[in-house]
Amino acid sequence: MSDGSSLAPDHGVRQGGPSLAPALTATKPAPRLSGAEEARTLVAATTVAALATVTGEGDPWASLSTYGLLADGSPVLCLSHLAEHGRNLLGDARASLLIASPEAAADPLAGARVTLAGRARRPADEASHAALRAAHLASVPSAIAYIDFSDFSLWVLSVERVRWVGGYGRMDSASAAEYAQAAPDPVAIAAGGAIEHLNDDHADALLMIGQRLGGHPDATGATCSGIDCRGIDLALETPRGHARTRVAFSDRLADSSQVRAATVELVRRARVSGPAH
Amino acid sequence: MSDGSSLAPDHGVRQGGPSLAPALTATKPAPRLSGAEEARTLVAATTVAALATVTGEGDPWASLSTYGLLADGSPVLCLSHLAEHGRNLLGDARASLLIASPEAAADPLAGARVTLAGRARRPADEASHAALRAAHLASVPSAIAYIDFSDFSLWVLSVERVRWVGGYGRMDSASAAEYAQAAPDPVAIAAGGAIEHLNDDHADALLMIGQRLGGHPDATGATCSGIDCRGIDLALETPRGHARTRVAFSDRLADSSQVRAATVELVRRARVSGPAH
Repeated sequence: MSDGSSLAPDHGVRQGGPSLAPALTATKPAPRLSGAEEARTLVAATTVAALATVTGEGDPWASLSTYGLLADGSPVLCLSHLAEHGRNLLGDARASLLIASPEAAADPLAGARVTLAGRARRPADEASHAALRAAHLASVPSAIAYIDFSDFSLWVLSVERVRWVGGYGRMDSASAAEYAQAAPDPVAIAAGGAIEHLNDDHADALLMIGQRLGGHPDATGATCSGIDCRGIDLALETPRGHARTRVAFSDRLADSSQVRAATVELVRRARVSGPAH
Repeated sequence: MSDGSSLAPDHGVRQGGPSLAPALTATKPAPRLSGAEEARTLVAATTVAALATVTGEGDPWASLSTYGLLADGSPVLCLSHLAEHGRNLLGDARASLLIASPEAAADPLAGARVTLAGRARRPADEASHAALRAAHLASVPSAIAYIDFSDFSLWVLSVERVRWVGGYGRMDSASAAEYAQAAPDPVAIAAGGAIEHLNDDHADALLMIGQRLGGHPDATGATCSGIDCRGIDLALETPRGHARTRVAFSDRLADSSQVRAATVELVRRARVSGPAH
């Protein structure tokens, strides 16, 4: 769960967000994924990153890289030592990966992204090479066309620092241990279809949830902006302007097969609670 | 036009591409955009980049950044000094931007991307600040919500090195002067609709162009993969496997309004030339 650090003004983007209408009625606290869980989930959701390395002169160099993942979330890269990023890593193992949400947002700074920073290492032995090779290919099947070429090498990034930004106003850092021990949220990763279905076919239900459980009784429109194992995020329209709210599920979901029942349960709770005031 | 450097094996991705069937018949040389023109075109096509900076310890740090552009193609960033990348630049001006094609590709390494590297500078005076502010807002209108906040600063990246990768097998470098003096290609930037139209409604015409002007008389299918002011790129299916070819327009086009007439002219040339054999 996000601790106080996520509210500290340690990232200016926070000030840059659109101003939002506050809730009018008290709502239950709605737990979220931790920063480490958010990071692991985002990293598991795509296979393309921007890689920052340093040249022999210490200049930063940004390049495109695909990646696979070890079980602890360490990214596995397959780079040519003929390419600048491969040459850079041979000279200086320090590296950082930016992974941005594959969901396109109209405002790119409203989208989620994570920076992983640490040191890249080559496999120490045959077994390690085989494990990295399998991990990379599992995420990037097209790498089979070049992964065994002599100018390509496998690298694993030992993650030392994690910085997650969930869009305007949400951000968190995670330690290497927190990152390694967290798990990707299978519900969030598979939520795209459920979000689309709710927004296409159940706008009235979302609005009632936002009005009665989300603290905005005057809301006139609601769309689902995210679902994870802990709850549902809503973007609301109100006469006071745009608003955002979050409503927790009663229990943490184990997988996406439980999303339907959990949202039906939210609608039931909203019905039972009646209109606020 | 790409010079020999684009064919040099200086980037391992080149070896990683799918193997392609060679042309069976001689074709006219088809000039391309230069690497600098490709870079300027790609940079003008989007407003989101990955920014690589270095920390006080010299560690590389990858982050997300929006950007606008000055007339010479210099990117203009708007960063908070509360965020890590803003703090990094205050300590070390060296920076690199990775800009990837917004066109999603099934294989991310098949897509175009460019790395710009140089030094970031703050505006020297009020007039310079106003110019950077206008350039950033022209590309990132949503920045109006925070661009004047006290923790945000404008930076212009003085581009010193340019590395463009057009996917498998196409790449080039450009000097700072070549980059600054090149212009984005207005035809390539606006080509999305024309490409879709050709592929949806004129597959037969594309196939005839590929067979008769593109050196693959045995092609059985053709799709347009790109259009720029110099010509048209085709992806072909042949009994010998996948192939790629390029056919030049008779004249360099001035803008996208001329694409229709230029492709009609290619079809006419293909008809007149008759089947190759």
